[in-house]
Amino acid sequence: MPHLTIEYTPGLFEADDLAPTLAEINGALVDSGSIRQEHDLKSRMIALDAFRIGTTQDARGFIYAQLRVLPGRDDATRAAMTACVAEVLRRRTRRPAGVQLQLSVEIVEMEGPSYVKGPL
Amino acid sequence: MPHLTIEYTPGLFEADDLAPTLAEINGALVDSGSIRQEHDLKSRMIALDAFRIGTTQDARGFIYAQLRVLPGRDDATRAAMTACVAEVLRRRTRRPAGVQLQLSVEIVEMEGPSYVKGPL
Amino acid sequence: MPHLTIEYTPGLFEADDLAPTLAEINGALVDSGSIRQEHDLKSRMIALDAFRIGTTQDARGFIYAQLRVLPGRDDATRAAMTACVAEVLRRRTRRPAGVQLQLSVEIVEMEGPSYVKGPL
Repeated sequence: MPHLTIEYTPGLFEADDLAPTLAEINGALVDSGSIRQEHDLKSRMIALDAFRIGTTQDARGFIYAQLRVLPGRDDATRAAMTACVAEVLRRRTRRPAGVQLQLSVEIVEMEGPSYVKGPL
Repeated sequence: MPHLTIEYTPGLFEADDLAPTLAEINGALVDSGSIRQEHDLKSRMIALDAFRIGTTQDARGFIYAQLRVLPGRDDATRAAMTACVAEVLRRRTRRPAGVQLQLSVEIVEMEGPSYVKGPL
Repeated sequence: MPHLTIEYTPGLFEADDLAPTLAEINGALVDSGSIRQEHDLKSRMIALDAFRIGTTQDARGFIYAQLRVLPGRDDATRAAMTACVAEVLRRRTRRPAGVQLQLSVEIVEMEGPSYVKGPL
C-alpha cells in the first residue's frame, strides 16, 4: 500500500531516466525491509510545468516526493523510508548548470479502517 | 467539499470512458446520502505515464483513488464511501489481458477551521 | 517547506496567466510573514482535463488549492494563509460566461520528524 509520488521541475530527469529511477527507488525501499510485499509499493513520477519557488528571479528547481503509508511503522522506520527515497533521488537527478535545487520528502500516514486495498 | 482524485495507469480507461465513469461515481456517492449538496462533490481522473509497481518485471497496473472530506462523518460512513468508489471503479475499468491490476481507495479527513470553500 | 498545489478546470487560466498568478500568490504569502525563508515556498499549477462536479449537466468549474506546511503555525495563521491564497485566486481567475465557479483552499499539516528538506 505505500504510494509514492515524485514531482520534479524541468531538467531534473529526462524521459529515459524515469524507469531506472523508479526501479532503483522501489528496490531500495523493498530492500530496506519496510514494505510488506513488494507489489504493495506503487510509485509514479510527475513532471511539473507551471511552478514557482519563492519570490526571486533566480534559476531554481525542486523535487518533492510524498510517500503515503498505512499506520503501524514507528518514527525511526518512517524517517529511514524518507531518507532512503532522498538518497536515490540525490544520486539520480540531473543537475542543470546554474540552477539551485531543493529536495523535500514527506511521509503521510493514511487512515487505516476505511482504506480499500486489493486486486482490481 | 469532498474532493475525489482517481489516478490510473495506461490501458485501464480510454478517453471516452472518463466522463461516464466520473458521472457514475458522483451519482453513486450522492445517492449514498453522504454528500450534503451534490455540487460539493468535485472529482477528477488523472492518467499516470511514469510508474512502477514493486520490483519485478511483471505486467501490472493500478488505480489509486483519494477522497478528501471535511470532518464529521463516522467510521462506518467513511468506509461506505470508499467502498462505493471501489465498487464503481471495479465495474468500469478495462482489464488489459495479462496485466495484474490492483485497486486502492483512501479517505483523508481535511482540516476544517482553515478550509476555504465558496463561490469563486 | 510550504508546498502549494493549485488545480483548475479549463478556461480559468490561460497559459500566460500562470507565471504572474504564481508570482503574486508567492509574494502575498511571503509578505504575510508566515513563510520563514522565501525560497521555502514551492508552488505549482496543474490543469485538470477529466473532471466532474456533482451530478447535473450545468456548466461548472472549480479551483482547488492545497497548501502543505510543517507543524508550528497556530489556527489563526493557518486560516490567514488559506485566505491569502483564496484572495489572489479570486482576483486572478478568468470567468467564462455562464460557468458556475467554486473555490476550495485546504491546508495540510505535514509530519515533521520524518520530513526531509534541503539542497538537492
